[in-house]
Amino acid sequence: MHPVPPEAALAALRWRYATKKFDPARTIPPDVWAVLEQALVLSPSSTGLQPWRFVVVTDPEVRKKLHPAAYNQPQVLDASHLVVFCGKSPPTVADADRHVAHTARVRNVGPETLEGFRKMVVGAASRPPEEGTAWAARQTYIALGVFLATAAMIGVDACPMEGFEPEKFDEILGLKAQGFGSLALAAAGYRHPADKYAGLPKVRFPADEVIEHV
Amino acid sequence: MHPVPPEAALAALRWRYATKKFDPARTIPPDVWAVLEQALVLSPSSTGLQPWRFVVVTDPEVRKKLHPAAYNQPQVLDASHLVVFCGKSPPTVADADRHVAHTARVRNVGPETLEGFRKMVVGAASRPPEEGTAWAARQTYIALGVFLATAAMIGVDACPMEGFEPEKFDEILGLKAQGFGSLALAAAGYRHPADKYAGLPKVRFPADEVIEHV
Repeated sequence: MHPVPPEAALAALRWRYATKKFDPARTIPPDVWAVLEQALVLSPSSTGLQPWRFVVVTDPEVRKKLHPAAYNQPQVLDASHLVVFCGKSPPTVADADRHVAHTARVRNVGPETLEGFRKMVVGAASRPPEEGTAWAARQTYIALGVFLATAAMIGVDACPMEGFEPEKFDEILGLKAQGFGSLALAAAGYRHPADKYAGLPKVRFPADEVIEHV
Repeated sequence: MHPVPPEAALAALRWRYATKKFDPARTIPPDVWAVLEQALVLSPSSTGLQPWRFVVVTDPEVRKKLHPAAYNQPQVLDASHLVVFCGKSPPTVADADRHVAHTARVRNVGPETLEGFRKMVVGAASRPPEEGTAWAARQTYIALGVFLATAAMIGVDACPMEGFEPEKFDEILGLKAQGFGSLALAAAGYRHPADKYAGLPKVRFPADEVIEHV
């Protein structure tokens, strides 16, 4: 693996901003998009449970249905891709068992060698429902962070969004029946040259207000 | 900005794993660590509120105190840096006001031009306390994802950890009095050549089980 020079990574993170106006004429090439999907797949989660689902919406008709449920924000229509980040609500022991069985297959070991690991994963997936749903949501936000950072690194613009009606998204996308709930969106594509937000200075508290050294 | 080739980003994400055994002799150079701190500072959050605090623990004495509260996991002692990700519990209207005032200063505009923005930020920071704390926790996990992805890109190993006792961490680090609660850890440094976990195949559900195309 050839690491990226730290200053190149920093430049990408500074270049990133919550893109408000996407260029509707520009589509993310399939090989580039494939890497962003892999960033989702490879995201880490506690105990490796991956208590999430990512719905990639490119169908313009579905986008049109989702648009009013996202307060008519133009990113939902204009971005090349729209990812709906969904969390398992709640994770179950069946999810834990599936993960442990899959681990045994991938690592080619007998399930009996994973007994300690199984206890840990089942424990994580046995929280009371509301707590479990909140935990899965936090894991899903790790994937959101990984997605946004990776997009920036490879020069793809994105806009994370919580401004939408989750219940309507769940209904339109049929998520509830599958045990998932929508949590956040990421529109991805390329900034429109006329997006005035691209040029505004970033607003962040000074480092010494958010980072404490001990 | 010169984007990273997508295949280089993908290689970094595949190279990444939850490092269990760090090389205690290797320290992240200051200029590299500075970029990882900037990744934290630049992480996006809903309404830009940054309802978080990152405590970077390098003092070996404090590490020793935290170690038993993290079930004696060696990463807490051996990694070059240990970041404690903390969320505001809960965010308050005062936090919102501070953010809006800061925005006005950074962008050199009168506060009266930010009235719509202020309403949105105050709304986000006015949730019932438990809900607000959960929301801040999710935002903080975005920063965790950005940190882990950036570390991987620049060739720094990391281990995200939820296996610790938050109340004990809060007490040892004096977080509660400042309105924060510890949520997750990231140990960062360089993998030990003898970490057997580095060589294990990654366990992820197949892409078509976690990604749905619509």
